[in-house]
Amino acid sequence: MARSSHNPYAENLDPNPANHVPLTPLTLLERAASVFPDRVAVIHGERRLTWREVYGRCRQFASALNKRGIGRGDTVAVLAPNTPAHFEAHFGPAMAGAVLNAINIRLDAPIVSFILAHGEARVLLVDKEFSELAEAAIRTMENPPEVVAIDDELAPPGRLFGDTEYEDFLAQGDPVFPWRMPDNEWEAISLNYTSGTTGNPKGVVYHHRGAYLMALSNMIVTAMGPAPIYLWTLPMFHCNGWCFPWTLAAAGGTNVCLRRVEPKAIFDLVHRHSVGYFSGAPIVMNMIANAPKDVLRPLAQPVTVTTAGAAPPAAVIERMEKLGFRVVHLYGLTETYGPSTVSEWRAEWDALPDEARARLKARQGVRYPSLEGLMVADPDTLEPVPADGETMGEVFFRGNIVMKGYLKNPAATEAAFRGGWFHSGDLGVMHPDGYIELRDRSKDIIISGGENISSIEVESILYRHPAVLEAAVVARPDDTWGETPCAFVTLKDGETVSESDIVAFCRGNMAHFKAPRSVVFGPLPKTSTGKIQKFRLRDAARALGSLGPPR
Amino acid sequence: MARSSHNPYAENLDPNPANHVPLTPLTLLERAASVFPDRVAVIHGERRLTWREVYGRCRQFASALNKRGIGRGDTVAVLAPNTPAHFEAHFGPAMAGAVLNAINIRLDAPIVSFILAHGEARVLLVDKEFSELAEAAIRTMENPPEVVAIDDELAPPGRLFGDTEYEDFLAQGDPVFPWRMPDNEWEAISLNYTSGTTGNPKGVVYHHRGAYLMALSNMIVTAMGPAPIYLWTLPMFHCNGWCFPWTLAAAGGTNVCLRRVEPKAIFDLVHRHSVGYFSGAPIVMNMIANAPKDVLRPLAQPVTVTTAGAAPPAAVIERMEKLGFRVVHLYGLTETYGPSTVSEWRAEWDALPDEARARLKARQGVRYPSLEGLMVADPDTLEPVPADGETMGEVFFRGNIVMKGYLKNPAATEAAFRGGWFHSGDLGVMHPDGYIELRDRSKDIIISGGENISSIEVESILYRHPAVLEAAVVARPDDTWGETPCAFVTLKDGETVSESDIVAFCRGNMAHFKAPRSVVFGPLPKTSTGKIQKFRLRDAARALGSLGPPR
Repeated sequence: MARSSHNPYAENLDPNPANHVPLTPLTLLERAASVFPDRVAVIHGERRLTWREVYGRCRQFASALNKRGIGRGDTVAVLAPNTPAHFEAHFGPAMAGAVLNAINIRLDAPIVSFILAHGEARVLLVDKEFSELAEAAIRTMENPPEVVAIDDELAPPGRLFGDTEYEDFLAQGDPVFPWRMPDNEWEAISLNYTSGTTGNPKGVVYHHRGAYLMALSNMIVTAMGPAPIYLWTLPMFHCNGWCFPWTLAAAGGTNVCLRRVEPKAIFDLVHRHSVGYFSGAPIVMNMIANAPKDVLRPLAQPVTVTTAGAAPPAAVIERMEKLGFRVVHLYGLTETYGPSTVSEWRAEWDALPDEARARLKARQGVRYPSLEGLMVADPDTLEPVPADGETMGEVFFRGNIVMKGYLKNPAATEAAFRGGWFHSGDLGVMHPDGYIELRDRSKDIIISGGENISSIEVESILYRHPAVLEAAVVARPDDTWGETPCAFVTLKDGETVSESDIVAFCRGNMAHFKAPRSVVFGPLPKTSTGKIQKFRLRDAARALGSLGPPR
Repeated sequence: MARSSHNPYAENLDPNPANHVPLTPLTLLERAASVFPDRVAVIHGERRLTWREVYGRCRQFASALNKRGIGRGDTVAVLAPNTPAHFEAHFGPAMAGAVLNAINIRLDAPIVSFILAHGEARVLLVDKEFSELAEAAIRTMENPPEVVAIDDELAPPGRLFGDTEYEDFLAQGDPVFPWRMPDNEWEAISLNYTSGTTGNPKGVVYHHRGAYLMALSNMIVTAMGPAPIYLWTLPMFHCNGWCFPWTLAAAGGTNVCLRRVEPKAIFDLVHRHSVGYFSGAPIVMNMIANAPKDVLRPLAQPVTVTTAGAAPPAAVIERMEKLGFRVVHLYGLTETYGPSTVSEWRAEWDALPDEARARLKARQGVRYPSLEGLMVADPDTLEPVPADGETMGEVFFRGNIVMKGYLKNPAATEAAFRGGWFHSGDLGVMHPDGYIELRDRSKDIIISGGENISSIEVESILYRHPAVLEAAVVARPDDTWGETPCAFVTLKDGETVSESDIVAFCRGNMAHFKAPRSVVFGPLPKTSTGKIQKFRLRDAARALGSLGPPR
């Protein structure tokens, strides 16, 4: 026992440059350039960039920033679709010690202006298509950033807006610039603003350590083989494209850029470049699954689709799998580097009927290997709910792929991390098999005659109707029942169906009290990130007033 | 510019328990138990343990150690083949804060005794088959460890040696013991002694951070899909089984234990359990490739074989791939957590002839994603050699999967890390495509008539001879030429071939001056880790004396 204070492992075994290097995706880029120098890293129209070229360009990027005195703790913002410049922005600024802020191109000028000012952007890269948005956003700023215009060859016609053009900006930099490793893997690498349904958006800060771990974890959860070919259907400004730019560097894969998500372009690129992977919100899958017959083409190679951003209706998963896509369902938030849970598939489910399989896959699942904690718990006491698939609680995350916090917002940061867990605000259940499944946020639950109705459950049935393209269900105030479910439905092109058909279909597939009592047809309002704006539908349902007693 | 001293990313964004957790394989075990509780984690004969059970047993293991006052900085040694207890030892001690020292069962008692004393082992687990070895090793020790006897059901008959039996020892522990996370990921997790061809073995210390990164990286380099089934042909006491125990936890896979490496057992288990992965030195592949006809069976599923530990002769790779195995060639040292480079395959090589493909695959390759630096450089100046595939240099490693250092040996640690790189002592070249290839250590180079001859090159030709099972080439002193190549060859069962046949075969396949001038037939001397002992062959060649002038 005398030995227990003695610890030989703590003596003369300190970290040194040979055995301790900050975890960062920057070494993954450097590795890709040294290991696969001539492999194509980026495809954009007819343009090709090898990993050697991308690495050189990112070093120029860093060098050009460095010459402007931009480095540690400075922000470089980007307003662009998925182009080579946007991909390079995931490395160049970090190689100067700076922080990337990729801004959603669907936002309006006042919000973009707020983000640029709050994030203290010193440089803003602007794709030609977004010159007007950028100009309007900057006009009112006290300390506007220097603007670099990206003259993308595939952009629609228009004028450039900026002090310098991107290629000229790069040309100012040194392609063998001795780029900067982070001093510490906890240093910030990027800043991503939440969509902010209420109040101003919050700036979520990622660090090099988390970005590196996500780079590897994405490979693992998708079982990515060597030299993957990845199509950019997911915006890079969504949680840094769920960290896939860094994953592609880790894998030495090929990025196929895409400015606009359209089924025909997707099928064309999937075939032309033998694409093996792409990502997107369920709405992207829905678009593909419902593509016109002349666009749908059988797949010539296995294609894995990672989906997250909203609960995918089981019917959409089922249709995609029938088309031959392998769907991997992920879930997470901006605060968790994008997806950090995976609906991990079990071989014993292979034999289940299609519908049952799709329903299992629609669950949010289990931790990424690099997420150290995930629980469904009481929001106040943080006591985990029983794993019964029924008791609702809030979803909590803990681990190395949880954000540093919100920029310049210590109160929000503290609230988000209360009790040593990240409070997601999402509600869900824990199933007996250890998989989580989201249920509605409390405001999405419809209480009709004292019974709770899950809007997600009703929507999942609506998606099974052959004429329905999109559906959302909200509460409609009711004098008798308190609330009744009201469905908003977009039909597929050329389809017609009546309100009573839809109601009857639902009643045939679920408890009668859960079936919608009213159906409104038409396009659904969406946020800039493609999420259905339920608050608008709730307003519309409220405006409808109370229904009479059941017919 | 006034803003440059201001860094908003460094304010109010410090690590907290929600967003910073030490990297450790222990969370991977906990995850496997919570995500795949009922999946089989370990198969041993007819025995099955689920991940829930393994997790509970490891907690008992940690608790039983804790009750003995064993914790941070204490060593727990194991002397066992690949059994469930050995697998559990990769987690249980670490969950108490202790350090695993897995000892090579082929060592002799004085060396085992040295290791136990130097590592200050406080507990030693001993498999029944190694009772005598352990007893002999401990007899002379001043502070002998407490001995726990593993009564493995598949061990050959024999007596137990120890104070407690392993199952009784576990039973003393609490299956819900609140196990200990490392305070810091830099804490030691294991201790592995080098084979020490000269002098005493050195104790290589691994940390939790590196073990975690290896767990993920092994999945990536083998493109491991979900629920992998892994056969334990590789000893767990070799660099902790190249960190695969931790990889299997990360993947939630199944470990198929194996006490003894024999072709029939391997084929039986591969078929019975649908094994998808196993690892081993080239000698294991050689054994399989040359298995008797009645043992060889066609594979019913894809099987990936990761091989490292010596340069695999291209002919052996070729034969394995003809049998349907996918060979992934890795390279590393005990000091780099086992393999940390991979001969990453490129699709453009698929079309090459078998022999050319095998030769490319026999190269040591490129960095693991989690190895931050690899170079071939001048041993003194650390100046990289040109990437010409010809200029020899020493292989250097840098990164997070390089050891903490040698236990209680600051001089050796300092020498190994001089200049901020780990000096491997291995010699090699850098090819123009960025792949490294080992060449002989300087003492393995034969200098004949002023020409350098690579013994590896001559051996790779010998392995192509249909009658040759194993081959090694060393220098034989020569009055005329200084040295000549002398081949030591083991023939396959039932094969006969003359010395002149072998020499003629070599002359037909390489420059004449490189061909062996003398051939000795018989079994080759090997180390406890299965490496051919060239120093013994050199002694034998020296004893032969000088050859006359060429016939």
